[in-house]
Amino acid sequence: MKSLYLATAEDAARLLPLVAALHLDLGFRTDAAHRERAIQPLIDGSPHGAVWLIGPRRAPVGYIAVSFGWSVEYGGMDAIVDELYIRPAVRGRGMAGEAINALALALKQSTIKALHLGLDRSNEGALRLYQRCGFAARDSQIYMTRKL
Amino acid sequence: MKSLYLATAEDAARLLPLVAALHLDLGFRTDAAHRERAIQPLIDGSPHGAVWLIGPRRAPVGYIAVSFGWSVEYGGMDAIVDELYIRPAVRGRGMAGEAINALALALKQSTIKALHLGLDRSNEGALRLYQRCGFAARDSQIYMTRKL
Repeated sequence: MKSLYLATAEDAARLLPLVAALHLDLGFRTDAAHRERAIQPLIDGSPHGAVWLIGPRRAPVGYIAVSFGWSVEYGGMDAIVDELYIRPAVRGRGMAGEAINALALALKQSTIKALHLGLDRSNEGALRLYQRCGFAARDSQIYMTRKL
Repeated sequence: MKSLYLATAEDAARLLPLVAALHLDLGFRTDAAHRERAIQPLIDGSPHGAVWLIGPRRAPVGYIAVSFGWSVEYGGMDAIVDELYIRPAVRGRGMAGEAINALALALKQSTIKALHLGLDRSNEGALRLYQRCGFAARDSQIYMTRKL
């Protein structure tokens, strides 16, 4: 069974409740209007990112939101896993790892050079999952943000 | 004096030697063809990034390469400092900080929500510089990469 679908505008009604569930879990104080504004460009073909649904398209159990960027060092586009969510009821079945591997294959075929992600240091389960999926930690680096 | 210029195709000949100098400093094994392929889209108006020259446009002393992406949490575009270089002869005069502040202002006016960057943990001078420029370290997070 194919387990990953590129979300389009017609998937909005199935996708937005999953986004709301992740934001609630993570304590992001977003409202429905914010989430709709944040997701709409990604399912309308924005060059800046895209969303993939995990599981059956008619009844998705999760999603991966990806941000596209550019790396001078790699000499091409790279991508960041911006958000990843799996419904609690279906966790522990390996779906996140399968989805990440299918995503990496799709991105590679689109000539994207590297896939990055950030996660909380204390989230050992996720850390092991991503290590199994071929991600290497960049421990010597520190990341900083300035809100604009 | 204005200290930051958005680079366009006509700046390539002045920009590429600066990119070569940074890559040599950082040990990136890129050749001239790679650097040209990596920079050209950014000075031709790619949606994925842009380059700003630091100093007088006719005789730039450095550059900032920026990657544009998308954040569902922030609900809009964000940006990452992909590369920053200042010629050794003019370091220590505060030009990097001025350039970062001018860049942040320009990005904010383009409705970009946040500016991120990564740096080597051991680079204490850069860490202090970015803290003075309003960047906060995300110490609880770990970053991982999978090359595709």
